[in-house]
Amino acid sequence: MTGDDPGSPAPPVTTAPVAVDTMGGDHAPEQIIAGAVEAVRAHGLRLVLVGQAPRIRAELDRHGVAGDIPIVHAEEALAMGEGALASWRKPRSSVAVACHLIKSGRASALVSAGTTAGVVVTSRLRLKAQQGVLRPAIAVTLPTRPRPTVLLDSGATADVKPESLVQFAALGTAYAQVALGIERPRVGLLTIGAEPGKGNKVVRRAHELLAGGQQGVEFAGNIEGDDLLTCAVDVVVTDGFTGNVALKTMEGAVRMAMSELQTAIRSSPTAKMGAVLQRRRLQELRDRLDSETYGGGVLLGLNGTVVIAHGASEARGITSACVLAHDLAAGHIVERVRDQIAATRTSRFGRRHGDKDGREPRPESEQPPFAPE
Amino acid sequence: MTGDDPGSPAPPVTTAPVAVDTMGGDHAPEQIIAGAVEAVRAHGLRLVLVGQAPRIRAELDRHGVAGDIPIVHAEEALAMGEGALASWRKPRSSVAVACHLIKSGRASALVSAGTTAGVVVTSRLRLKAQQGVLRPAIAVTLPTRPRPTVLLDSGATADVKPESLVQFAALGTAYAQVALGIERPRVGLLTIGAEPGKGNKVVRRAHELLAGGQQGVEFAGNIEGDDLLTCAVDVVVTDGFTGNVALKTMEGAVRMAMSELQTAIRSSPTAKMGAVLQRRRLQELRDRLDSETYGGGVLLGLNGTVVIAHGASEARGITSACVLAHDLAAGHIVERVRDQIAATRTSRFGRRHGDKDGREPRPESEQPPFAPE
Repeated sequence: MTGDDPGSPAPPVTTAPVAVDTMGGDHAPEQIIAGAVEAVRAHGLRLVLVGQAPRIRAELDRHGVAGDIPIVHAEEALAMGEGALASWRKPRSSVAVACHLIKSGRASALVSAGTTAGVVVTSRLRLKAQQGVLRPAIAVTLPTRPRPTVLLDSGATADVKPESLVQFAALGTAYAQVALGIERPRVGLLTIGAEPGKGNKVVRRAHELLAGGQQGVEFAGNIEGDDLLTCAVDVVVTDGFTGNVALKTMEGAVRMAMSELQTAIRSSPTAKMGAVLQRRRLQELRDRLDSETYGGGVLLGLNGTVVIAHGASEARGITSACVLAHDLAAGHIVERVRDQIAATRTSRFGRRHGDKDGREPRPESEQPPFAPE
Repeated sequence: MTGDDPGSPAPPVTTAPVAVDTMGGDHAPEQIIAGAVEAVRAHGLRLVLVGQAPRIRAELDRHGVAGDIPIVHAEEALAMGEGALASWRKPRSSVAVACHLIKSGRASALVSAGTTAGVVVTSRLRLKAQQGVLRPAIAVTLPTRPRPTVLLDSGATADVKPESLVQFAALGTAYAQVALGIERPRVGLLTIGAEPGKGNKVVRRAHELLAGGQQGVEFAGNIEGDDLLTCAVDVVVTDGFTGNVALKTMEGAVRMAMSELQTAIRSSPTAKMGAVLQRRRLQELRDRLDSETYGGGVLLGLNGTVVIAHGASEARGITSACVLAHDLAAGHIVERVRDQIAATRTSRFGRRHGDKDGREPRPESEQPPFAPE
């Protein structure tokens, strides 16, 4: 593992390279490697490519950068559709090897377009949760205007306790600070009514805990589904089940709007004339909602930064994911999360350890993790 | 309570009139009464108007139909924002009085644009759940093409057990048969991945129960958020929390697409020229997604048909809601639900009464109901 990037501007030398899983994703390894090469060329990032070394070498040769980007060999890939057990069956998968690089300090972060369930389970197993973190969460950045909105959890943890939602507020706050530069992000709790009493049991209890005050978290109250895209808050907190359904529903609704528009355009010759600009605008919107453009989801709460790019990512999406991974590592996201979680524990968990039944909060780690593709 | 409707075509005389709550909604009573008058005039429906009699009389006079539509006096209204306790505090609210009309056979159904929480709680208390029904659910009809899709629960029951989701499949099947005329509706379970193991605990268990076979229910497996609008299935089953978030997210996403388009149109004079048709198309889509046009949600599982129109409903929405309420009553929705639930219980609940821990399934009625506005 040697070799510096040839590009400029050079990132701070203190940051270890970003490990890229070349074997995960619908377009692996060609598009993954193409995106990585672009990240080195255009953004001057330091990377290390993980996967089948001969194949990677051949691709780098094709791009004319053979020898410029370090390679770490891994024999196996997590197959698409492979679930929770993959991480046990494949200790030498490219994702597992990349996690090992992070643990040993030889990489600062991981980028993978592999199956979400596989990447989540493998990295949880290899990197372990940060001290005090009950469950990890995947943060995605919604393309709202004038500024983006962070939604978490978008699918790492389907069953949560209220305490996990409080922690997601802390994780999301750290993420919005580092990734988006928002100093005091406003955090909303996704539910089905503005009043504190609205929601399911878990959300109602989480509201109590958040409204009671959490150090470092700027809680702005409940928000509803139709406020996800209105910049009502900077960070939206929800469980991984609801978050994933909401995210996919949003994508489906925009896709439907696009298709309605295309029908309208096809239906009239005159309409075709002036339609180009509007169509382009909606296309842009769809692109913005597409994971490809916002760099993928980020798995927060582990001892290492993990960026999960969309399975369908092509080169451009991988480049964005590499830049995001680098920025998060350079911004010390893991340390920021640690500090946020520590503050949250001090201000609240210290006072009332356990839920209102007086039971100890279980670490939830015995629950099997379920995550979407 | 006398007087027949003057219009034609006359509905079958066997159906009692639809009770309309004139006091619920942002535009009560003017728009409610205007919508009711139109339902009588244009659709020949038999109605009974419930609310402050002098006020209703004055409005009917204004429309030139004084004396043509029967009135039942009710002094109080459920205030917007009033929650679960309203039904206890106000036994003579217009909704409570309308429920009483249904119980005594003097009305076949109820239409209200009042607060969802208030209408749900009041009608649950007054009409009671049908025998065997664990929790009621609100069904809404999504404006998908080429045919509509039923989504339930959209907000009546935030915390459910797997057995309730199985019952929602039965409720939704009956509803799609009666309201949409689909003989064997395909039912999908909303979750976060296509495989049976994907989802939270409740959904995974519900999948087992549904996949095991439920008489009268055509289970088509899991669906994800982006398939809500693609006609992948005829009926989508989910809990009231997730369903409400998904519905509002959908509305928000289409509104965002509209606003992006308007920005594009404003940004260029040439674009304005050809934009009319596309804008109208998206406007139509937004209208279709708006509750106003699909007649509102229908509360299923009680001993009576309850149509909850959108709080912002104007006359047109109320007319649609009245037509829907009439059609459901005429189609014997309550009896169809009863038969479906009975079949479901026989084929599955008879064999294993209770969940896998071996506990008796609680009727869940002790849980406080939480519903969105």
